[in-house]
Amino acid sequence: MSTDFIIDTESLQQFCSRVLSQLGLDSEDASLIATALVEADLRGVHSHGVILLPTYVRRLQAQGINPHPKVRVVRETVATTLLDGDNGPGQIVAKQAMEIAIKKAKKAGTGTVGVLHSNHFGAGARWPMMALTHDMIGLAVTSTGIMMAPWGGTEIFLGTNPWIVAIPAGKQWPIVLDMATSVVAGGKLVWAAKRNEQIPLGWAVDVDGQPTTDPLRGLAGQLLPIGGYKGYGLAIVVDILASALTGASLGFRMKQAIADPALPLNTGHFFLAIDVAAFMEPDQFKATVDNFIEQMKRLPLEPNVSQILLPGERAFRTEQERRITGIPLPAKIVEEMGEIAVRFNIPHLQMSI
Amino acid sequence: MSTDFIIDTESLQQFCSRVLSQLGLDSEDASLIATALVEADLRGVHSHGVILLPTYVRRLQAQGINPHPKVRVVRETVATTLLDGDNGPGQIVAKQAMEIAIKKAKKAGTGTVGVLHSNHFGAGARWPMMALTHDMIGLAVTSTGIMMAPWGGTEIFLGTNPWIVAIPAGKQWPIVLDMATSVVAGGKLVWAAKRNEQIPLGWAVDVDGQPTTDPLRGLAGQLLPIGGYKGYGLAIVVDILASALTGASLGFRMKQAIADPALPLNTGHFFLAIDVAAFMEPDQFKATVDNFIEQMKRLPLEPNVSQILLPGERAFRTEQERRITGIPLPAKIVEEMGEIAVRFNIPHLQMSI
Repeated sequence: MSTDFIIDTESLQQFCSRVLSQLGLDSEDASLIATALVEADLRGVHSHGVILLPTYVRRLQAQGINPHPKVRVVRETVATTLLDGDNGPGQIVAKQAMEIAIKKAKKAGTGTVGVLHSNHFGAGARWPMMALTHDMIGLAVTSTGIMMAPWGGTEIFLGTNPWIVAIPAGKQWPIVLDMATSVVAGGKLVWAAKRNEQIPLGWAVDVDGQPTTDPLRGLAGQLLPIGGYKGYGLAIVVDILASALTGASLGFRMKQAIADPALPLNTGHFFLAIDVAAFMEPDQFKATVDNFIEQMKRLPLEPNVSQILLPGERAFRTEQERRITGIPLPAKIVEEMGEIAVRFNIPHLQMSI
Repeated sequence: MSTDFIIDTESLQQFCSRVLSQLGLDSEDASLIATALVEADLRGVHSHGVILLPTYVRRLQAQGINPHPKVRVVRETVATTLLDGDNGPGQIVAKQAMEIAIKKAKKAGTGTVGVLHSNHFGAGARWPMMALTHDMIGLAVTSTGIMMAPWGGTEIFLGTNPWIVAIPAGKQWPIVLDMATSVVAGGKLVWAAKRNEQIPLGWAVDVDGQPTTDPLRGLAGQLLPIGGYKGYGLAIVVDILASALTGASLGFRMKQAIADPALPLNTGHFFLAIDVAAFMEPDQFKATVDNFIEQMKRLPLEPNVSQILLPGERAFRTEQERRITGIPLPAKIVEEMGEIAVRFNIPHLQMSI
């Protein structure tokens, strides 16, 4: 296991923003993506933090992503929109899509937005969480690079297809579930590899279908679904909502595009905003959620468990802490960022004081 | 393991219908519930078949369920409805709720219906599947009796809270995911107990938190969530959508009501219908789903796997077969039905010829 460096948050944000600006993004767009990447690291979701920057750089340089997308409505009803992301960065497209979902939900009670021709939108939590300040529940699913075999099969065909749900609370942290339908997201194996760590058995199998503790062998093989055929089923539903319903890439087509950074991914997303007020007074709802959380937290604990955590709670606590202390990054990632700094002729990352 | 009896489908249906009629249900309502119960057994979902009849009888006799509900709209927007089930049988309420969701989706692109004051709605698949003939995707989640502890806790507080999604296909079977967020539904342990079978390790722990292969000890203890904290998170989202958003029972209140058959359960449901036509031509969508399924089915297989099955496929195949052969039921359940036959003075179940 390697020692981590503690990086200054502001420096990391500026670093990402500068790189993306040099790749042709408008400063506002570059800043949005940089903020989203750094936010993931702040929240402890390193699988979706700056670890993604080299991939984004590669695809933008290969012109596999359009830095100036003209996002366009393809179909529309009072409560739904089909949006064409014009091959823009996923974060730019996702933000607009979720804004539309929220706007629709204000009028119709719910807003549903399907998206095609998008790209990787980074850590998922950020987009459904946009609903929270509107007293709405947000939900998102997205297609991803394929890394899972169907249940009973030996060849990868399905993404790690996450389900993401954000629920407003009152005094308590919002409940934010952001989970791959694989046991872990692919990025967790990349992160382990960067830190020279092994992975637990049960995360992945190698190309021969044998259980492995080597993250690189796991990445070359298959990730395993949560709950066996149930995770497989949940991943299929994501592919249908995010890709079959929108016209985005599925299965082998996604595999081809992932392999070539110049090929548009045609990633699909599906967003849903539910206006609490369409069902119940928001204050009453938030008091109910608070009470639900507080009752759970008072339940007796397993040995060696200090408290019951709600989905997303650890991320909120980690962010609070790291906004003060800075962001730990393994030496290998700091090195990669150093190479990018030289290549783009921008200041190196600063350590946190 | 006990030998099963093969029961005539029509006889089982009439049997359930007669019992429910004697308990005060209108013949149409009794027939709906009987059909839903028998359909679950036909589909091989025995955890939600006639095994439930004794519980329904007990609650109806204790007047814990209203046999003549006046289902009522509480709130409404163009795309959403909050429905009060008036403590009616869950099947009666669910059917009306899903009809409203479909009607809304025809106008608004999606229809979302939250329900409070309902009861157990039986096997979940039936309700979202109502969307299929309208070229819609159906989704449902429901609260259930609590049987799971929060992650890290030792006391039950969460239901086995299933996610159910039905997706139309063209030539292929529809994709129908119907999964508890526990490793298995509670009814699978009841079914195992009725057949004097043990359960695999990993399904449940006993009251002392120890792994158990005894279904009755498991039922007295806790069911385990799929994928550890992920199943826990999915169960929480169900509680929020089905119960917090609608005003239905949560946690301890659900526990109290389950324990006393005279207490209304105030079960909550959440239904969503998505009109495919709001996003894509339904024929194109169904061809995409067919192609997705067919590509997966051509992938190489694990040893000892004869084919890749899609969610719900086994149930469709089992139903086809059993519509001809009849329904296998363990001796203990046939005995229970015999006692009910005597008590209600109705003809006994007939064996299949």
